[in-house]
Amino acid sequence: MKYLFALFLSLSFLSSPKAQQTDSLQIRKIFDMALTEGHAYENLRSLCKDVGARLSGSPEAEKAVQWAKALLESYEFDSVWLMPVKVPHWERGDVELAGFEGEPMSIKTLGGSVSSKGRIEAEVVEVHNFEELAALGKAAIEGKIVFFNRPMDKKLISTGEAYGGCVNQRWGGASNAARYGAVAVFVRSMSHHNDKHAHTGSMGYEDGVKKIPSVALSIQDAKALSAALKEKPNLKAYLEVNPKSFPDKDSYNVIAEIKGKVEPDKIITFGGHLDSWDVGEGAHDDGAGVVHSIEALRILKEMNYQARYTLRCVLFMNEENGNKGGKTYAAVAKEKGETHVAALESDAGGFVPRGFTMDGSANQIARMQTWEPLLEPYRLHIFEKGWGGVDIGPLKDQGVPLIGLRTDDQRYFDHHHSDSDVFENVHKRELELGAASLSAMVYLVDKYGLGESLKPIQPRD
Amino acid sequence: MKYLFALFLSLSFLSSPKAQQTDSLQIRKIFDMALTEGHAYENLRSLCKDVGARLSGSPEAEKAVQWAKALLESYEFDSVWLMPVKVPHWERGDVELAGFEGEPMSIKTLGGSVSSKGRIEAEVVEVHNFEELAALGKAAIEGKIVFFNRPMDKKLISTGEAYGGCVNQRWGGASNAARYGAVAVFVRSMSHHNDKHAHTGSMGYEDGVKKIPSVALSIQDAKALSAALKEKPNLKAYLEVNPKSFPDKDSYNVIAEIKGKVEPDKIITFGGHLDSWDVGEGAHDDGAGVVHSIEALRILKEMNYQARYTLRCVLFMNEENGNKGGKTYAAVAKEKGETHVAALESDAGGFVPRGFTMDGSANQIARMQTWEPLLEPYRLHIFEKGWGGVDIGPLKDQGVPLIGLRTDDQRYFDHHHSDSDVFENVHKRELELGAASLSAMVYLVDKYGLGESLKPIQPRD
Repeated sequence: MKYLFALFLSLSFLSSPKAQQTDSLQIRKIFDMALTEGHAYENLRSLCKDVGARLSGSPEAEKAVQWAKALLESYEFDSVWLMPVKVPHWERGDVELAGFEGEPMSIKTLGGSVSSKGRIEAEVVEVHNFEELAALGKAAIEGKIVFFNRPMDKKLISTGEAYGGCVNQRWGGASNAARYGAVAVFVRSMSHHNDKHAHTGSMGYEDGVKKIPSVALSIQDAKALSAALKEKPNLKAYLEVNPKSFPDKDSYNVIAEIKGKVEPDKIITFGGHLDSWDVGEGAHDDGAGVVHSIEALRILKEMNYQARYTLRCVLFMNEENGNKGGKTYAAVAKEKGETHVAALESDAGGFVPRGFTMDGSANQIARMQTWEPLLEPYRLHIFEKGWGGVDIGPLKDQGVPLIGLRTDDQRYFDHHHSDSDVFENVHKRELELGAASLSAMVYLVDKYGLGESLKPIQPRD
Repeated sequence: MKYLFALFLSLSFLSSPKAQQTDSLQIRKIFDMALTEGHAYENLRSLCKDVGARLSGSPEAEKAVQWAKALLESYEFDSVWLMPVKVPHWERGDVELAGFEGEPMSIKTLGGSVSSKGRIEAEVVEVHNFEELAALGKAAIEGKIVFFNRPMDKKLISTGEAYGGCVNQRWGGASNAARYGAVAVFVRSMSHHNDKHAHTGSMGYEDGVKKIPSVALSIQDAKALSAALKEKPNLKAYLEVNPKSFPDKDSYNVIAEIKGKVEPDKIITFGGHLDSWDVGEGAHDDGAGVVHSIEALRILKEMNYQARYTLRCVLFMNEENGNKGGKTYAAVAKEKGETHVAALESDAGGFVPRGFTMDGSANQIARMQTWEPLLEPYRLHIFEKGWGGVDIGPLKDQGVPLIGLRTDDQRYFDHHHSDSDVFENVHKRELELGAASLSAMVYLVDKYGLGESLKPIQPRD
């Protein structure tokens, strides 16, 4: 029935053939520019190779801030500025050792984990969820390493959904296991890809529970450990990691904007996050979103598009382990009394774009769906209610509709938070198509708005 | 307006909730089996690594026939047989040398090309189309090597369309250039990917025109040669290749079927092509289609699906340089008076599936579009009039609706007909999703048919 409603709206307020033709020509121009003279791929190469991995609080993250500021300034937007953000500062350390029976495993310490303070050696108990852990209880767990080995569900077409079904092991595994006296935690990497890359990511500790170290195992090592435990249930494994947390540091969101020509006080924000994990090069996560967002603004400027609203590209700091950039941005917007027409995010990698999801009202989603005929020639088909993005999430409290760029996610978790998230694993045209899609959606939001009313609002052309 | 029509049909004849529920459960089962206990990926590994590249007429092609027969027999379908096909036999030879100013170029002799009979050295004339060639005429072309350097159009979202806009250079470049006295032809590879892999493919000679050798240059070499010619227009290049054509050989289409339970005399044919070019491993082109088709039949058998029609998996021989398998299959069908309900083909690689195109009547296409709601949960969105496939193409004369599986094609021509079309460049889940999509479409065609009538036909559930 989705189509009937969308069709009704299309016929009722996208019926001006002149408006439709203008839009389709403008969108064609956006895609042509991205595909024939785009900057996204070279910008991503530079971010990955000249800056590299850039965890909040690291010197590389500060280098990324300067890189982004200089690049945005080179495009001569109306303004470019840094918004101060206090960020956590955690370092992986220089020791990451684990294994069993003389065989080393490929691991990554999880972000936020404490040090093992030397070598831990203990029996391993494999579990698949917190219920299983609770059922085993203290008698079985005390003094052991708990191994969370629930895989991502292959049946789910959305790998993001499969990730969502596993990630509580990574985030909460340590405190849950520590409650029963575990000494450390191994977590199976969140990936479908059968390789030796361990995938890091955030974890947290519950107040009042002993902090124990927590590391991710590569998929191949998780399988090998599980198989070995079947053979030898009292198998011992070892672990030595030396990460460290430091006091918060000063950092920045990097922002550029083009002033609106009609209602400059209303803002369309779109962005990705500038920080990444400290492994690989943060190419898909979220170098792609960074260069998508810069390119979206660059193309509209280059086309000399006269925006109604102020178009603001925001490169957020600290999505990965704290979301301080997103929270600060929303707090500043509230404090200044800024009005956001919408916020868009690209944080799904540089894969081929499939459409958009919106965290907004039924009326706003229906409005977005009326744009489908304009974007379908570019093979964008997903226009649904759904996720916006972590960085823009805090704007929801201010009633801002949030829009997430959806890319094809089959390959996303192969690379996510691992050494293989590098520039070479991003495809030039797929990246360019994503940039053009984001730019086109910004154009449409600017042209038609997403303001609420009981009746769908007429386009203003 | 497409949606209005599809919606009308959906409401009018997919309105039985029970039928829809059965279908959605069956399709869910198909995807679950492909994603959790699929054979497609391992079968592709075996075809690529145990057999390898398999050009018609080669010992490897005959090995592929035996490989496919044994695999199909292992699945205990109702019958497995070989259909004799006479195929061309061309060999690349062991010399492929070209270059200029002391620098070698990465080339591939085009399939069907004659030998250079030793080394050719001549000035190079760059052109972009046959009109430019004709305008230059004999005075400028005689005794030269013609370099066709028209790139694929980056603006086209469909890379297949961009390929279609260039491939006449490859097929007809030699005879067109020979008409003006050229001694050889260089053709820019048909790819968007900036690398050193040259992409081979078929070429042909016109009767009565001198046969001259024709080779593909890698994209990087084409760019370098073009740049060098701007500096030095009378630049000379050299070429030495020694391919050879032999008399036709005996080969086979490999066929397996499950007999229909209600109308066994009516057939749904689906397949890919077993031959490949003699470079890389023919992984995407068309190992993927081969394993998709085998898997589509295996899954329906494993589910104990009671098919109305006979389901026939056909692995065609010689799509790449003659389509003798497809032509023979259609001729045999005609001779035997077989009735085909539909023919489906997977020859778009093992990339993430996006939907289906149909070369059929408006009524048949509208019927297929009514199935969209059942397949949209698997992110299949393309249900349009369009291309079926080369192998099934000859069935069109018999009025058979032809359906092509459409995959995402952004990466397809990166690998097509080149050394990089190997198993490692196929993604497991993407391949499995393609197999499930094909299987689901076979299921729907079997369940609802595609028979013509003035009014849309009611589903038979």
